[in-house]
Amino acid sequence: MLFHVRMRVHLPHDLDPAVEEELKSREKARAQELQRAGTWRHLWRVAGCYANISIFDVDSHEQLHDILSGLPLFPYLDIDVTPLAQHPSALPEI
Amino acid sequence: MLFHVRMRVHLPHDLDPAVEEELKSREKARAQELQRAGTWRHLWRVAGCYANISIFDVDSHEQLHDILSGLPLFPYLDIDVTPLAQHPSALPEI
Amino acid sequence: MLFHVRMRVHLPHDLDPAVEEELKSREKARAQELQRAGTWRHLWRVAGCYANISIFDVDSHEQLHDILSGLPLFPYLDIDVTPLAQHPSALPEI
Amino acid sequence: MLFHVRMRVHLPHDLDPAVEEELKSREKARAQELQRAGTWRHLWRVAGCYANISIFDVDSHEQLHDILSGLPLFPYLDIDVTPLAQHPSALPEI
Amino acid sequence: MLFHVRMRVHLPHDLDPAVEEELKSREKARAQELQRAGTWRHLWRVAGCYANISIFDVDSHEQLHDILSGLPLFPYLDIDVTPLAQHPSALPEI
Amino acid sequence: MLFHVRMRVHLPHDLDPAVEEELKSREKARAQELQRAGTWRHLWRVAGCYANISIFDVDSHEQLHDILSGLPLFPYLDIDVTPLAQHPSALPEI
Amino acid sequence: MLFHVRMRVHLPHDLDPAVEEELKSREKARAQELQRAGTWRHLWRVAGCYANISIFDVDSHEQLHDILSGLPLFPYLDIDVTPLAQHPSALPEI
Amino acid sequence: MLFHVRMRVHLPHDLDPAVEEELKSREKARAQELQRAGTWRHLWRVAGCYANISIFDVDSHEQLHDILSGLPLFPYLDIDVTPLAQHPSALPEI
Amino acid sequence: MLFHVRMRVHLPHDLDPAVEEELKSREKARAQELQRAGTWRHLWRVAGCYANISIFDVDSHEQLHDILSGLPLFPYLDIDVTPLAQHPSALPEI
Amino acid sequence: MLFHVRMRVHLPHDLDPAVEEELKSREKARAQELQRAGTWRHLWRVAGCYANISIFDVDSHEQLHDILSGLPLFPYLDIDVTPLAQHPSALPEI
Repeated sequence: MLFHVRMRVHLPHDLDPAVEEELKSREKARAQELQRAGTWRHLWRVAGCYANISIFDVDSHEQLHDILSGLPLFPYLDIDVTPLAQHPSALPEI
Repeated sequence: MLFHVRMRVHLPHDLDPAVEEELKSREKARAQELQRAGTWRHLWRVAGCYANISIFDVDSHEQLHDILSGLPLFPYLDIDVTPLAQHPSALPEI
Repeated sequence: MLFHVRMRVHLPHDLDPAVEEELKSREKARAQELQRAGTWRHLWRVAGCYANISIFDVDSHEQLHDILSGLPLFPYLDIDVTPLAQHPSALPEI
Repeated sequence: MLFHVRMRVHLPHDLDPAVEEELKSREKARAQELQRAGTWRHLWRVAGCYANISIFDVDSHEQLHDILSGLPLFPYLDIDVTPLAQHPSALPEI
Repeated sequence: MLFHVRMRVHLPHDLDPAVEEELKSREKARAQELQRAGTWRHLWRVAGCYANISIFDVDSHEQLHDILSGLPLFPYLDIDVTPLAQHPSALPEI
Repeated sequence: MLFHVRMRVHLPHDLDPAVEEELKSREKARAQELQRAGTWRHLWRVAGCYANISIFDVDSHEQLHDILSGLPLFPYLDIDVTPLAQHPSALPEI
Repeated sequence: MLFHVRMRVHLPHDLDPAVEEELKSREKARAQELQRAGTWRHLWRVAGCYANISIFDVDSHEQLHDILSGLPLFPYLDIDVTPLAQHPSALPEI
Repeated sequence: MLFHVRMRVHLPHDLDPAVEEELKSREKARAQELQRAGTWRHLWRVAGCYANISIFDVDSHEQLHDILSGLPLFPYLDIDVTPLAQHPSALPEI
Repeated sequence: MLFHVRMRVHLPHDLDPAVEEELKSREKARAQELQRAGTWRHLWRVAGCYANISIFDVDSHEQLHDILSGLPLFPYLDIDVTPLAQHPSALPEI
Repeated sequence: MLFHVRMRVHLPHDLDPAVEEELKSREKARAQELQRAGTWRHLWRVAGCYANISIFDVDSHEQLHDILSGLPLFPYLDIDVTPLAQHPSALPEI
């Protein structure tokens, strides 16, 4: 089932640059692992902001929570979750 | 280029049911026409609300405005537009 | 899977009293039918407001949307949906 | 009498990890003690957020305040309290 | 137990003046009946606004809801309810 | 003349515990002094929050400002002030 | 004592033009009467909006409420009231 | 001097189409007259919304208010006004 | 031309008391200098808050910005600026 | 294509003054470079605030994001982006 997730990143200004670099690198690796698994279905940058809009496809709310709360940047994220349903006017996606 | 669009429908309670039916039917036809053209890339229902979240792929802001302001339900829509960019952690979509 | 749903009712002041009575009576019957089916797990009145807080247990986002958008009072409802997950400190409910 | 309580946790980024671990462990023990006592009637995780939605059953506002303000994580909680009443369409809970 | 209640009145501009007069007169009678009963403990006008701030003393959330939802002006009220507890620095009220 | 005042306390997490204790103790003493003087007419705890709702009876805006800005916890308070007037439906308070 | 008052006018679109003209004319006459009396000390237009910012000098909250709620346009006004005190850096006004 | 003005149009759904057409036509004529005069310096459509963002160059607040409140669509506009100053990093506009 | 300015002061809790005292003293001197010059026309304290409401009379937006951004407390101020125009119902100020 | 961008600067109070000076100097240089390139079409100061309103002309959302996220002050900016389209009443800009 699909969820629309908006994440806004707020890094503290005094974060150690090496820690920051390592967090971002782990975040990217995890994001790509989840995309390859088909769980993180879409990932877009919000133009001009340190934020993204994503679509997740998960089996349960527990799985969604585990994935989001396990992201390396989770302590610095503001997250909005919106459950999505099939739209009656949507054509089948190929 | 991609835009994230959230539309919330507010139909007046005293709208003539025949007019309402005709508006919705034209809206659906237009939505499917734009999906077939590849312009309305994704269309999801926000679960529990008379609202959708969509992704549009257009060539210009003028085209985006013409499409949205030309929707049959436009006078009854609250619309939020967010420009999207390629995310550095996104894998190529197939 | 569980959803927290908050519904706020806004009836137009000029609604025909007979129509209003019939809507409320159908809403009550439907709410009780869904409670008996185990889908509408909890239903509480927000004290002092024409509003409720509810817990739904559904199989999919499509089922949740069909249930909520099919409520007789749906055109008059403001609805907030929040997906719930098992809490790590929660004891098993009996 | 029942209260709907939403708690959002904001831990400072520079909290000592040992202190954090000890706070969370005491919070969990207290939450389970209150669930066993029948006071903390429901406890759900808000999917994707460091937050919970809970139902408390207490005898007085003083008891509710003592319980919430005595939680180990209280200094880091944003709390919303909503009094709940019996809903006229609710079936008796078993 | 005590509740802080803020009520804001929004009368439709096209309300029949005779109906309006009768509603206000019944509202006043009911407010005074509840004050005499000791249930509506305080009633203040918010200076410059068609609004009041009140303190209610009731035995249950059900009683609070019945009182508020039974007010003649209830369909035109925006109501905020806040549960109050004894403050540790408060002297006993005489 | 009467003012409705809502105060929300935000203590910094790194405040020295001895300083915090002393601030709270002076705040309590001052609150009780003002209650005895009849200036701080009511003082209630907002259940579940580090906040109070109060009614002040002062002779001027200057007196109200001096009292509030002179509270030991003032630098940590979010304060909302609402002027109250006699309500036409209010019975005389005894 | 001084109050800062912001008024925003919302006239219904279907108001009878003759009624509107008469309301505005009575509002203007009353505003000038109160200015001459020294009660409505300042009256400014918010540039670009059907709104004003005003300073009132009254003896009590009851007087302020009577003045504002007695304005001909009162049913169409959104009003914000802010009590003002002497500022320690202000020079005496001549 | 320059002002940034954002206008959002809210036409009532039951506006007579002939009246609407005539209002829009007069609005367009007036907008172009003010552009030719150099007063309405920039006029952009907010993509996807019935709204515009504009830059006005006027001699006084009175002139700005007269222009905006004299627009044919003024009764249906939500207007935000922001005064602009020369930016220290701005190059001279040609 | 006139501007309505609301300033809210947020001093960091760990500001050096000597620095704070010096900032406030320079702020007061500057405020009085601008009042004497007729530029800072009115200055009122918002009762109960570390905030003021002011009226400035300046020749240009550049002058307004230079004055406000040059205030000693500027880095700690939240500032709202509203341009004011002559009100058609206002009597000439003496 | 055009974008309306509003930037609000929030510098931490404990930023090293030399670092701050260098950041601002690089920001100014970059802003002028982008103006000369025709990309940063307009740049205005919001009077009274550490903020600007700007118009950018870019070829893609990726270019817009690269420019904004590459600004020296980006970690301290709150940014709002609004896509602009040609307005049907706008005269051709010379």
